Amino acid sequence: MIALNRHRKLARGVSMVGVGVAQFGAFPTKTTRDIFSESIQDLLNRSEYGLNIGEIQCGYIGNFSADRFEGQAHLGSILADWIGLTPTPFTRVENGCASGGSAIREGVMAIASGLYDIVLVGGVEKMTSVPTIQAIDNLAAVADSLYEVPAGFTFPGIYALVAKAHMDRYETNLEHLMKVSIKNHHNGSLNPKAQFNMPLQDLMQQRIDWAKDKGAVIPHWNNEYEFLNDLSANPWIAWPLKLFDCAPITDGAACALLVSSDLARNFTDTPVNIIGIGQATGRPLHDAEELTSFGATRFAASQAYNMAGINANQIQLAEVHDCFTIAEIVAMEDLGFFAPGEASRALDDGRTSLNGELPINTSGGLKAKGHPVGASGVAQAAEVFLQLSGKAESRQVQKKDLEIALSQSVGGAGGTSVVTIYERG
Amino acid sequence: MIALNRHRKLARGVSMVGVGVAQFGAFPTKTTRDIFSESIQDLLNRSEYGLNIGEIQCGYIGNFSADRFEGQAHLGSILADWIGLTPTPFTRVENGCASGGSAIREGVMAIASGLYDIVLVGGVEKMTSVPTIQAIDNLAAVADSLYEVPAGFTFPGIYALVAKAHMDRYETNLEHLMKVSIKNHHNGSLNPKAQFNMPLQDLMQQRIDWAKDKGAVIPHWNNEYEFLNDLSANPWIAWPLKLFDCAPITDGAACALLVSSDLARNFTDTPVNIIGIGQATGRPLHDAEELTSFGATRFAASQAYNMAGINANQIQLAEVHDCFTIAEIVAMEDLGFFAPGEASRALDDGRTSLNGELPINTSGGLKAKGHPVGASGVAQAAEVFLQLSGKAESRQVQKKDLEIALSQSVGGAGGTSVVTIYERG
Repeated sequence: MIALNRHRKLARGVSMVGVGVAQFGAFPTKTTRDIFSESIQDLLNRSEYGLNIGEIQCGYIGNFSADRFEGQAHLGSILADWIGLTPTPFTRVENGCASGGSAIREGVMAIASGLYDIVLVGGVEKMTSVPTIQAIDNLAAVADSLYEVPAGFTFPGIYALVAKAHMDRYETNLEHLMKVSIKNHHNGSLNPKAQFNMPLQDLMQQRIDWAKDKGAVIPHWNNEYEFLNDLSANPWIAWPLKLFDCAPITDGAACALLVSSDLARNFTDTPVNIIGIGQATGRPLHDAEELTSFGATRFAASQAYNMAGINANQIQLAEVHDCFTIAEIVAMEDLGFFAPGEASRALDDGRTSLNGELPINTSGGLKAKGHPVGASGVAQAAEVFLQLSGKAESRQVQKKDLEIALSQSVGGAGGTSVVTIYERG
Repeated sequence: MIALNRHRKLARGVSMVGVGVAQFGAFPTKTTRDIFSESIQDLLNRSEYGLNIGEIQCGYIGNFSADRFEGQAHLGSILADWIGLTPTPFTRVENGCASGGSAIREGVMAIASGLYDIVLVGGVEKMTSVPTIQAIDNLAAVADSLYEVPAGFTFPGIYALVAKAHMDRYETNLEHLMKVSIKNHHNGSLNPKAQFNMPLQDLMQQRIDWAKDKGAVIPHWNNEYEFLNDLSANPWIAWPLKLFDCAPITDGAACALLVSSDLARNFTDTPVNIIGIGQATGRPLHDAEELTSFGATRFAASQAYNMAGINANQIQLAEVHDCFTIAEIVAMEDLGFFAPGEASRALDDGRTSLNGELPINTSGGLKAKGHPVGASGVAQAAEVFLQLSGKAESRQVQKKDLEIALSQSVGGAGGTSVVTIYERG
């Protein structure tokens, strides 16, 4: 019998030396190619030493299903050609909503393997090409098509089960879900690339205008709490989740340039080293051991912490997979930041706010920045890079010695989880 | 400027120590999960030292589009759970019809990276869940959805262009295409897992019975040449390609167990080492520099030969991507086995037959074994393993010192090409 060691070191160091993010939003006239190209243009614009993309030796594309959204599979090849990179090998990686996180992991291993020094990891999803109801149906393909979807489940319903179980077991309540939403929308208002790049007050006003158009009687809301509490403004989607508990349908793309660490300073003065990475699978929710925690996240985190040689207490900033507000609460606990059931108290105390002790989702998260499925994991890495390199502008976390951060990308309801740990280089 | 080296060595050696192949065919009652599980069962059945699949540390699934065929994305997680392997990380890899070949490459890099010692690479496609016309439409998503598909192209038409160009430029003719088909069907008749596990004579009989059912007047065919020449038996699909120039629509799966080479003898007495691997992208056909050769194959082959430190003349056996008969001819030339335009003469001389100097597609190839898209690249690796380890039974190549073999997996019409070189361990 061969002894297993699931907590290995990489054969050589890998650093992130540049990132690009396309504008997130709903863009009826843009294709997947247009949106991805925007992220590449942003990478080039931010490049300190005049990046020549022809130097890229290998690429990965995180994408959930351009097949279903746009009739285009084989996206690695198509996008490599579109940005002029043939014959560089490109490969599409799909792990549902964790596709971007998994693409980063493949990029890391491609460098560590010794085969490549300079690897581009992109993520992209064009989702508004179909009506929202069709997009939700497409997304249901991430769940179990034999045992969940035929029972009528789509993801709002699946995460509603998680929320209900968490509220039953712990002191979590609707107010805590709301606090995640308020926090992430605040952060999103400071991120010009976010789909909701506005304070919640402005979203309230949009909602008022929309209701007035429909001839509705408009309630008076004094603040965001009243707004989010009002079912006419924030209706139930799948009890106990309301509209503003759900990440939106988004068109968007992001990319990250990974290189062998010994080359990092040729690309930037502020590299970010990838010091830990873990990935795990979990059972589909219909067959899960518990509803209030994702085993895949706990396992992936333990791999990543072990590889990095640190523990959860040392993480200073995190981007987590808040496809629904409850998902951020579960992540806060599964990643070991807070004990099971304690995330709600941390939210009450504002500990994960932009200037709290452990800022979470400074980008606005999937909730406010938007959730172009295959891009989200890569966009998280991009946010971590900007924060650790001091380039996050008005949302820059004002911490002395901000050095270690984490990102977590989830596919389904814990079917896949990828956890990556970064250190300022 | 950083010097590129695209012909690196792996940081550590990788060996293939076991394979599994599901029955290929059309199975209306089987799901993707059933078919994949069959390949795992075959891997276990063939295991010499009682493989414990719980030892697998990481997995890849080559799959083109269970999303479109079966409404199931996120297949890595779903299949890992189905075979009882949670929380082992699994990732789906999609590069069109090269998905299986690319999955092998990710498995190789995962081991070389130092992160994992024991990696399962699977490939699976369930295609008969939709009518054939819908399957062909699904497959068209591998081509360019903006510039080729709207013009009416599906893959028979795309490869017909390649065939026409090759026939115009060189001495290739319809007879040469037919010879690929006859050879591969002969090999397939010796492969019990093949979709067409029968001599072409039996296929002729099936075709006669089918035509009789339809009330047709049945011509008399004395042999396979007359059969393939008769348009009533072998009609045009897209001129100059006829029905028996096209690989079939297939349900099937295959898997391969890869391990760090220092562990190989714990699993088998006949390991096969992966000594070279290359992947490249090419432009879509509408924008290709030429039609008679795929640049991606030439580039991937040069990477693989360089890594292995060998040249094309040293290859003793090959599995190539014969989605259409013309694709085998193009591959024979792009891989450097024969000079451009010389593949047709090699076919005339029987040089690639089972007992020729360079047997090609001993498994029956995609043409006769079947082409379950995401599985094909992995099934090629499985055939190479069986041949190099002397376990290919009635189709075993009878060469002394059979040591070095190659497989080539193509996505689209050269959009992606993966070339892998193997050596008997």
